[in-house]
Amino acid sequence: MAGGKGVALIVGAGSGLSASLARALAKDGYRIALAARSTDKLAALCDETGATAFTCDASDADDVARLFEAVDRLAGELEVVVFNASARARGALVDLDPAEVEKTLRVSAFAGFLVGQQAARRMIPRGEGAILFTGASASVKGYAGSAPFAMGKFALRGLAQSMARELAPKGVHVGHFVIDGGIRSERRPADPHRPDALLDPDAIAASYLHVLKQPRSAWSWEVELRPWVETF
Amino acid sequence: MAGGKGVALIVGAGSGLSASLARALAKDGYRIALAARSTDKLAALCDETGATAFTCDASDADDVARLFEAVDRLAGELEVVVFNASARARGALVDLDPAEVEKTLRVSAFAGFLVGQQAARRMIPRGEGAILFTGASASVKGYAGSAPFAMGKFALRGLAQSMARELAPKGVHVGHFVIDGGIRSERRPADPHRPDALLDPDAIAASYLHVLKQPRSAWSWEVELRPWVETF
Amino acid sequence: MAGGKGVALIVGAGSGLSASLARALAKDGYRIALAARSTDKLAALCDETGATAFTCDASDADDVARLFEAVDRLAGELEVVVFNASARARGALVDLDPAEVEKTLRVSAFAGFLVGQQAARRMIPRGEGAILFTGASASVKGYAGSAPFAMGKFALRGLAQSMARELAPKGVHVGHFVIDGGIRSERRPADPHRPDALLDPDAIAASYLHVLKQPRSAWSWEVELRPWVETF
Amino acid sequence: MAGGKGVALIVGAGSGLSASLARALAKDGYRIALAARSTDKLAALCDETGATAFTCDASDADDVARLFEAVDRLAGELEVVVFNASARARGALVDLDPAEVEKTLRVSAFAGFLVGQQAARRMIPRGEGAILFTGASASVKGYAGSAPFAMGKFALRGLAQSMARELAPKGVHVGHFVIDGGIRSERRPADPHRPDALLDPDAIAASYLHVLKQPRSAWSWEVELRPWVETF
Repeated sequence: MAGGKGVALIVGAGSGLSASLARALAKDGYRIALAARSTDKLAALCDETGATAFTCDASDADDVARLFEAVDRLAGELEVVVFNASARARGALVDLDPAEVEKTLRVSAFAGFLVGQQAARRMIPRGEGAILFTGASASVKGYAGSAPFAMGKFALRGLAQSMARELAPKGVHVGHFVIDGGIRSERRPADPHRPDALLDPDAIAASYLHVLKQPRSAWSWEVELRPWVETF
Repeated sequence: MAGGKGVALIVGAGSGLSASLARALAKDGYRIALAARSTDKLAALCDETGATAFTCDASDADDVARLFEAVDRLAGELEVVVFNASARARGALVDLDPAEVEKTLRVSAFAGFLVGQQAARRMIPRGEGAILFTGASASVKGYAGSAPFAMGKFALRGLAQSMARELAPKGVHVGHFVIDGGIRSERRPADPHRPDALLDPDAIAASYLHVLKQPRSAWSWEVELRPWVETF
Repeated sequence: MAGGKGVALIVGAGSGLSASLARALAKDGYRIALAARSTDKLAALCDETGATAFTCDASDADDVARLFEAVDRLAGELEVVVFNASARARGALVDLDPAEVEKTLRVSAFAGFLVGQQAARRMIPRGEGAILFTGASASVKGYAGSAPFAMGKFALRGLAQSMARELAPKGVHVGHFVIDGGIRSERRPADPHRPDALLDPDAIAASYLHVLKQPRSAWSWEVELRPWVETF
Repeated sequence: MAGGKGVALIVGAGSGLSASLARALAKDGYRIALAARSTDKLAALCDETGATAFTCDASDADDVARLFEAVDRLAGELEVVVFNASARARGALVDLDPAEVEKTLRVSAFAGFLVGQQAARRMIPRGEGAILFTGASASVKGYAGSAPFAMGKFALRGLAQSMARELAPKGVHVGHFVIDGGIRSERRPADPHRPDALLDPDAIAASYLHVLKQPRSAWSWEVELRPWVETF
């Protein structure tokens, strides 16, 4: 239930982090909107958080425009947008399929632009709101055998930094999270002997929520999060 | 009153940020210890937060050793150490007094080592605790006319990063804050027309407290904070 | 003519920097191949340097494959590939045309991947060769009002870093240049009162040539170049 | 013999890199001055390069002032100063001797300030000259078990960056080299099976010489050098 708070939209929903974010934002009073390429798996999360799910290819400009128009029709102002979508293609540079590389760039970075632009159009006129981008180790370090992901995540960070410089003086908070480690999930359960060697998605969500609560005199642009045992 | 929590020591106390941290940590249940070169001005803060104040030259190894021995005698484990001390010497490079530069390095960086080492000795055996260092814009950017401060703050960041890599796997959380902007204080009051163009020290303290609450599966090493209108 | 040296291919030829590179590489004994979307303006440079010009849309995978097959038919091994192509779209984030943003990403980053991949396929089997990418201030700093260029240049840097980590141990030198300032050109002539406030493209080319001459025990991955009067 | 060129001073002379620099600078026509805590081992290098050796504790302000006064009396303007001195103390943070840490900071960073200041005083009035600082992997990454070296090298980098911003507009070129790998030396000979897995000091010197030859329209502030097989 949204005690005075507005709408929080999570794009690229479905993963463990998005579900944790949805629960944390709902608990904090936001009305939740979830967008994903397929909403089939979101039913339980919608039930749990009261969220509305939207089908959207975030790398398609028209689809993203339609998504935001649909979100506009929900009760409440759009106060928070989280961009979580990403794709990756791994492999030796010489073996990569150019079509896969292009898709990685489109989903990981171009989609971030499309979502960020629509969010900015709604937040700038009100002089408030927050747009948070989810990065990875690859946002700041290009690993061998993972060029496409490095390209996508570096590009997303460049977008987030440019947006932070442009939108902060207009009252819109842009944040970028460097998630430096594996996230615990159903597919990747915790090792019982090292239960916190993987990032707990609820703990990540708590740091996103903290950034949302920062007053604008002391905003973070970038926050890095990693498990205590992760080398860096 | 320390509802189950232990001791939080703030070194370099006196400034607005240290007072805000003392209040926030006390409110959160920590028993507060304050260390400063002179404790004359800390009486009111001690009254308000129940803190104990210690006189200490943080750049003197023996003084720092004595400080921690005194803190050991307080009830409760040492759970949090915040290093806030810094000195700066400004001016054209050719005009700087070498003695002032040396002092800047000693107070801003060497003192950080002395405090960090004593803290680590107490926290590593227990496999828990947090050591937080306060940096500045100069931690990541060496400005013209401010070489000594850049030297001190870069060095402190190198210390904090090395400590994070060494101590995190031992369960001790090391954090570094890049405070990128001016902090509101009595000497530097807010402009009524732009009340949040300076960092609110209470808002900074809230981000320190958030980092202290992070479970170790999702620790931040570095957090940057700046006012919405600050260029970067 | 190439006194023992092989072929150097410059992709994105036409600008002042590419011409300076062509001249410097030709003088150093390389046989020059130039690739550009349109080769109309390259006739004089080809005459001067003995270069062969190829028409190529570097953001098209098939075109790039054909380009390298044509270069393969030149006498000499492909020893150097320089990627200079870039596009930019400026403007307030909310006003940007998504199609322009996508094009910027394709030309500035995806094309770099296509060119880098083809180069790597030819160099890795021989265990030698160099692939140099031209970056800009926007490679490491996302400016307000310039999100697409930041996205493209950050992505290109991520590619170059990932390629350096992957290809260096295979004997192929990958370099990334951060050109931090305006380059002098016909369209942007030097101010007679500050003749070296803009980067001289011949001076940039000299630093590229130096990197090509580095023995593999002491390779640079990243080199930044800026005019003495440029703020950074 | 100095064919029109002036004096090049290398502080912290003695290691393989300093000897390579002395030879390369002498070959290029500079008159060489070498400064070291002890000049006992410099006799052969002086014979070979025509260098003059000076005894100097670079972390002592008076000693450094005397060194530069002595260098002033050599024929020729002081055109190049290279700062190579460094000290390191390794070990678990809790075991480090504060006196060793302080010494590391003094030799690795404070000495750099003293040398840089004296150099700047001589170069700024002429509006030319170059001051080059030798960094290490630890300049940009604080490793576990090596806090003091990280502190010293981060501080030196902060100094070099601040000096570059301050002195470049005055015509003085300040450069910082990140030597990211082991340097081949008598004590650390090359592995015959991987002869170029260690940095060749002559190759490093060649990159220093290149930076010295850069015209001021295209100066490097930072250059990183590493062997092809070094992970980073």
